[in-house]
Amino acid sequence: MPNNAPTDIEFRTQSQLGELYAALDSGTGREVQRMLHTLSPQNIAELLESSPPRIRQLLWKLIDSDVEGEVLQELPDEVQAQILATMDTDEMVAVMEGLDADDVADLLQQLPERVMGEVLSAMSENDRQRVERVLPYDEETAGGLMDTDTVSVRPNLPLEVVLRYLRRHERLPESTDSLFVVNRRDQFIGLLPLTKLLTSSPNATVREVMTTDVKPIPADMPDAEVAQLFAKYDWITAPVVDGEDRLLGRITIDDVVDVIREDADHSLMSLAGLDEEEDTFAPIIRTAPRRAVWLGINLLTALLASWVINLFQGTIDKVVALAVLMPIVASMGGVAGSQTLTVVIRGMALGQIGRSNLRWLLSRELGTGALNGILWSAVMGGIAALWFGDWRIAVIIIAAMLINLITAAVAGAILPVVLRALRIDPALAGGVALTTVTDVVGFLSFLGLATWFFA
Amino acid sequence: MPNNAPTDIEFRTQSQLGELYAALDSGTGREVQRMLHTLSPQNIAELLESSPPRIRQLLWKLIDSDVEGEVLQELPDEVQAQILATMDTDEMVAVMEGLDADDVADLLQQLPERVMGEVLSAMSENDRQRVERVLPYDEETAGGLMDTDTVSVRPNLPLEVVLRYLRRHERLPESTDSLFVVNRRDQFIGLLPLTKLLTSSPNATVREVMTTDVKPIPADMPDAEVAQLFAKYDWITAPVVDGEDRLLGRITIDDVVDVIREDADHSLMSLAGLDEEEDTFAPIIRTAPRRAVWLGINLLTALLASWVINLFQGTIDKVVALAVLMPIVASMGGVAGSQTLTVVIRGMALGQIGRSNLRWLLSRELGTGALNGILWSAVMGGIAALWFGDWRIAVIIIAAMLINLITAAVAGAILPVVLRALRIDPALAGGVALTTVTDVVGFLSFLGLATWFFA
Repeated sequence: MPNNAPTDIEFRTQSQLGELYAALDSGTGREVQRMLHTLSPQNIAELLESSPPRIRQLLWKLIDSDVEGEVLQELPDEVQAQILATMDTDEMVAVMEGLDADDVADLLQQLPERVMGEVLSAMSENDRQRVERVLPYDEETAGGLMDTDTVSVRPNLPLEVVLRYLRRHERLPESTDSLFVVNRRDQFIGLLPLTKLLTSSPNATVREVMTTDVKPIPADMPDAEVAQLFAKYDWITAPVVDGEDRLLGRITIDDVVDVIREDADHSLMSLAGLDEEEDTFAPIIRTAPRRAVWLGINLLTALLASWVINLFQGTIDKVVALAVLMPIVASMGGVAGSQTLTVVIRGMALGQIGRSNLRWLLSRELGTGALNGILWSAVMGGIAALWFGDWRIAVIIIAAMLINLITAAVAGAILPVVLRALRIDPALAGGVALTTVTDVVGFLSFLGLATWFFA
Repeated sequence: MPNNAPTDIEFRTQSQLGELYAALDSGTGREVQRMLHTLSPQNIAELLESSPPRIRQLLWKLIDSDVEGEVLQELPDEVQAQILATMDTDEMVAVMEGLDADDVADLLQQLPERVMGEVLSAMSENDRQRVERVLPYDEETAGGLMDTDTVSVRPNLPLEVVLRYLRRHERLPESTDSLFVVNRRDQFIGLLPLTKLLTSSPNATVREVMTTDVKPIPADMPDAEVAQLFAKYDWITAPVVDGEDRLLGRITIDDVVDVIREDADHSLMSLAGLDEEEDTFAPIIRTAPRRAVWLGINLLTALLASWVINLFQGTIDKVVALAVLMPIVASMGGVAGSQTLTVVIRGMALGQIGRSNLRWLLSRELGTGALNGILWSAVMGGIAALWFGDWRIAVIIIAAMLINLITAAVAGAILPVVLRALRIDPALAGGVALTTVTDVVGFLSFLGLATWFFA
């Protein structure tokens, strides 16, 4: 039961924030510095992310300079961009030193083209080369996720030699669970899991014990697809290759976890017209314009509904009770439709829904809509009859609710599929499109039937 | 940009489904069996999950019996329960053979108490003991996530001995990236990462190279918190201990990824009154009753709004234009409020929002609401003046929209916090509570002002 109660981590974050803010308020920067010094980079990033912009900048100035890079890398894109905007080239180069090439590339992509060039040319030759190898790849592809810190071995070596070779390393790259086996042309041919290396005879060759059932990931694969593969096959690391199967780098599960989180957030945020990378503590100047657009679109659809009502002014003038009840018909359609819509959008995001099962899903939704339509329209009919003492109003609302709940089921199931076929994001446009349909059909059927009955 | 276009994996799933259904339709079970035989257990689970109930059962019967367990374990709880319900005790025992203890425990928890006992007593002594060690833990705690397949070593051993000890194993448990170091009383004292084992001198002792900065996870920690820790510290495996720090087992990232996915889905599904483990292809008989409850709750809130409108029948009777415009005021409030609500609910789920920053967030939302309220109410005022040629209506709708958008900002920011303090899930109740507020305030302010103006 997530979200029901705050976890210990949330309690801790919030109490840490409380202490920090108290220290900031009393003006003792040294005290704040001491507190920050005891925290891990991930923890500091969490506190920054949970702070309003002004405090964020105060805190940033008080962080130990040697963890700045690690903290920055843990922050969401939008917050990174804000902080980078306050730094000059030298500061940026200093901050990025010691980070993985993929993380540096992510940071650089938050910068304007010109600044990015300046930072790159101020880096050491070695660092620049590492970064320039991953920079060409879109942040939202396998290439953008990968780092280039891999340990690779040749297939003909005996394990004994591999073990000696590893022992010459000071340390292996983080999350290394496998070595990559490549041929002379640097093409990926298999994986040598550390567990196999440790349990096999030292005299065996790499080729004899390597696993070859892992297909390497092409660098241009979209990150959402990479995440699906990791989740499906329980990978910890996976090799990334170019068009000729040459090993470029590796993706590790920790970067994939972030993708999974963002993808799962996408539907939630989009249904409210928000971006999944939205900074919770963005200032008004950023929030207001973004939301204004969404409200404007919704005003248009609300005007459409009003235009429908306007057609029936005469009827409402005759029977005012209609104005009282009409929002119920629209609202129940909207609620029923959004349930169907949410199930379908999630099913589509999980890759479950397509041509082969859409028909079954549609008929299930139709059945559910009809059953619940019968149930609640009957209840509402009874209430309306008692309330206004007019059986005609009861009949009208029963019919209109039935029509609208069935329409809602069809619209909720079909709209996302149609939108996607039109290359429009169903999570973003689905909710608006659905309420437009259920409002218009709700008012039209209710007031239309009433006009006919009371004519 | 997730969800915008189907990924290759989705295309593949859908085309595989198409082929399977075609083969099922033509009645050649053998052909379907041949197709299933070529697929991985994860792939088969995906196809089952994406199929309506009747086809699911047909497909299940055609799966090779030696992969049934692995397929079953990949399915969501609800689908597991459906399939288990068709099996007898012997079949269940056969299916569960060879699975990890934690996965067997998950399956058993889908069964009625009596059946669970039968299955346990039909298991081999060894398997039963393994399972009974994890069974007492709630599925949604660290204990429920862990498996008991750990490799542990003593601190005083030289690495050379550890290497020899490992080589005596046929294989190490999946996703092993570290050995656990325990003392004589089986208490966890440190981690020995395989990468360190491989890069350190064979003469060093375990104690000299082990890392001690990892705090073990108590078995009763909620799974959402475990997921936060893994995401934050990029863990691949982590040790689980009892109240006396004794090593019980380990949690691996692949189980955590599922928790992260479900937690992220929670807000999306709850806002539509759905459960995050909802089976996309549940039959009508399951879907309809669940949704009926939600529709009933919404009918109550819609009736409340109608009751408010009803108070102003006289005013509407005088000026019918009010009935035409009133849904706009309510709808704009609902949309603006749901944006605030979504941001706050997500921020709370990420642990970002608490007492220390709620005030800042509230003022940001108020500012945003006021700015957008001024913008769009002015636009709407202009439209209303032109449409109905009455400046009073324009003034009324401007004032009402302003009031409702500011109310929406306050309600969207405060409601989730209040609900959580009352131990009510904000994601589940927040949407309903919010629309109730924005509908009531919208109709009340618009019609109230109108009554005052037109009196």
